[in-house]
Amino acid sequence: MRVLGIMSGTSADGVDVALARISGAPPGIAATLEGHHHVPFPRRLRDAILRLANGGATTAAELSELDFRLGKEFSEAVIAACRRWRVPLRKISVIGCHGQTMHHQGANQWSRVGWRMASTLQIGEPSIIAERTGIPTIADFRPADMAAGGQGAPLVPFVDYLLYHHERLGRVALNIGGIANLTVIPAGAKPKDVFAFDTGPGNMIVDALAERITRGRTTYDRDARMALKGRTIPELLARMMREKYLRKKPPKTAGREQFGQAYVQGLLAWGKKHHAQPVDLLRTAAVFTSFSIADAFRRFILPRATVNELIVAGGGTRNPLIMAQLAAALPGIEIIPSSRFGVPEGAKEAFAFAVLAYEAYHGRTNNLPSATGARHAVVMGKSVDPLGAGKKK
Amino acid sequence: MRVLGIMSGTSADGVDVALARISGAPPGIAATLEGHHHVPFPRRLRDAILRLANGGATTAAELSELDFRLGKEFSEAVIAACRRWRVPLRKISVIGCHGQTMHHQGANQWSRVGWRMASTLQIGEPSIIAERTGIPTIADFRPADMAAGGQGAPLVPFVDYLLYHHERLGRVALNIGGIANLTVIPAGAKPKDVFAFDTGPGNMIVDALAERITRGRTTYDRDARMALKGRTIPELLARMMREKYLRKKPPKTAGREQFGQAYVQGLLAWGKKHHAQPVDLLRTAAVFTSFSIADAFRRFILPRATVNELIVAGGGTRNPLIMAQLAAALPGIEIIPSSRFGVPEGAKEAFAFAVLAYEAYHGRTNNLPSATGARHAVVMGKSVDPLGAGKKK
Repeated sequence: MRVLGIMSGTSADGVDVALARISGAPPGIAATLEGHHHVPFPRRLRDAILRLANGGATTAAELSELDFRLGKEFSEAVIAACRRWRVPLRKISVIGCHGQTMHHQGANQWSRVGWRMASTLQIGEPSIIAERTGIPTIADFRPADMAAGGQGAPLVPFVDYLLYHHERLGRVALNIGGIANLTVIPAGAKPKDVFAFDTGPGNMIVDALAERITRGRTTYDRDARMALKGRTIPELLARMMREKYLRKKPPKTAGREQFGQAYVQGLLAWGKKHHAQPVDLLRTAAVFTSFSIADAFRRFILPRATVNELIVAGGGTRNPLIMAQLAAALPGIEIIPSSRFGVPEGAKEAFAFAVLAYEAYHGRTNNLPSATGARHAVVMGKSVDPLGAGKKK
Repeated sequence: MRVLGIMSGTSADGVDVALARISGAPPGIAATLEGHHHVPFPRRLRDAILRLANGGATTAAELSELDFRLGKEFSEAVIAACRRWRVPLRKISVIGCHGQTMHHQGANQWSRVGWRMASTLQIGEPSIIAERTGIPTIADFRPADMAAGGQGAPLVPFVDYLLYHHERLGRVALNIGGIANLTVIPAGAKPKDVFAFDTGPGNMIVDALAERITRGRTTYDRDARMALKGRTIPELLARMMREKYLRKKPPKTAGREQFGQAYVQGLLAWGKKHHAQPVDLLRTAAVFTSFSIADAFRRFILPRATVNELIVAGGGTRNPLIMAQLAAALPGIEIIPSSRFGVPEGAKEAFAFAVLAYEAYHGRTNNLPSATGARHAVVMGKSVDPLGAGKKK
């Protein structure tokens, strides 16, 4: 069965479309990546997403329009990808779309509206994707897990477990996107032995600083060129490492709420006060990404499991500074790019949503309660199938 | 098969839950109402909904929280209703939830974001309803019709056609909610002969004026008591009847965009300038509701079809002034409350969403392209079924 996964991460740089060929049922599922295509968002669209996702003032009308606009973007990315791969749309059985996160608050807390209410909002109208492609689409996975008491994240560990569990090797799958998240799969693990959490920032802080430093000319620090010109500021790094999120016990999730614009403003203010060079701030932030990941290993992983292999994915794997610092901080653990398992770094999350959709399509549960904290396993995802029983395939 | 419908209208006064027993397949569908329950929203929740639906400034976080909060309200309304009816939740096969409209713009237009994009936004998280009730839930019907080029409204005509089509009688089904909408079902009609549109305001203007006049002590003019103390202002009525929406050809949809807060502000400003009594404004607005409906008959219905019966539903049927003016303006047409067909006025829309969900559940199309303007029939609705194939019933 051919399944497409669509992912658009918190950095809002564009859409990743992954084509997966999947067969079987857990734990005997076999999934291989057959194609990956990235379509960048137009600058203005990215700006609008980031403004709203960062808490900017908006209206219901604007969010509604952005939801439909993103549905259109996603469907066009799918059509472009399939044309490029020369795979006719009718050969695709189902699409899984994560959507674009506009808000995610996994834990209950008092909001300014005055209700104690965890919630999540992913947009990108799946009805538009299904209509324009003619393919049944499953989207908006997180709310079902949250309705069952979970944090609605992380979702990829379910897929990591299906793909990476090994009888004799303890493995950790790490994704360095805007946020860095990992899945711990001890040797011979059952689903309940798997645990997962967000370690803290991935590229979120580094990207925001790079954009500020270059006054918007770049959206990230390519090959860590700028950071490599700077020096780590030990007192700032020590201060960052005292961040209380790092001490919080898993399961836990992070996002712009912790490491978004407000955090970066704080860093810049610190830098101004202490006359720090921008490239020094950037280098320190990159090192903080690596150290916060290593810190999570020491606090929460190594006391509970032996780790033989660290399988890495996500945009952060292209930052040589982050990768070098990570390797140095985790001696004895082999670092393997996820591409070695057939999934290139950038395609990992989109691929995961293809697998989640495949499970939902068959009516099988697709969350991992031990990772999300949900009271029980649920089928996540909302199904849209405009042609219904009348479709001709 | 027992199906629940959940509706929360543009007036945001609360949730209507309808219990329907449905069998068969179109055109031989049989549906009867077995229960109706209304749960008012807490005042603060209603205020929050109306503020956002009227275009008030908000954030993605607030809308996300309201989405989850409404999912909780809807699920609690379902549980309260079933307890009252003594119907165990496990006897319900599926729930159809319209959700709360926060924005609806059926026709393409330039938005302030700068994209030409029709869109619609209904909230009230169905994953929460499905989780808390254990019943598969279908929600968010409008986007699929819009993705197929339709206006995403009106949806009820599909149900009106199924329930009211008659070989020898021409019928119009009218619902006077916040907005007044109707379905024209000529004698012996096939689906393509049915047409439907919003005539303009229902209670939207009258309710808003009543609330302003009583400084928020009431949310509507009970039994038209206040309006009956006033006199119609002919020059204002004539001015209102020149509203360009009335001349626009069907299919067409109206909402707060045309008759919401801004419109009411305009009326109040007119009243202040001309030293009009508030009760006179209120009476004029009520008469405008009736006259705008009658105007639609003269312009768009009577030239195309013979109408024998007008089947009325919605909160506006409890306003004796609106009903008397309507009867006077439509001589020769028998006015019949929808309750005579087994569906009490207030339950009509909730009941309709039970029928729409029943069709979607069976993978059958449930929009009426002749009413919405869609290019083709589609299965509307997003399905959530957290227990999936593993459910025990």
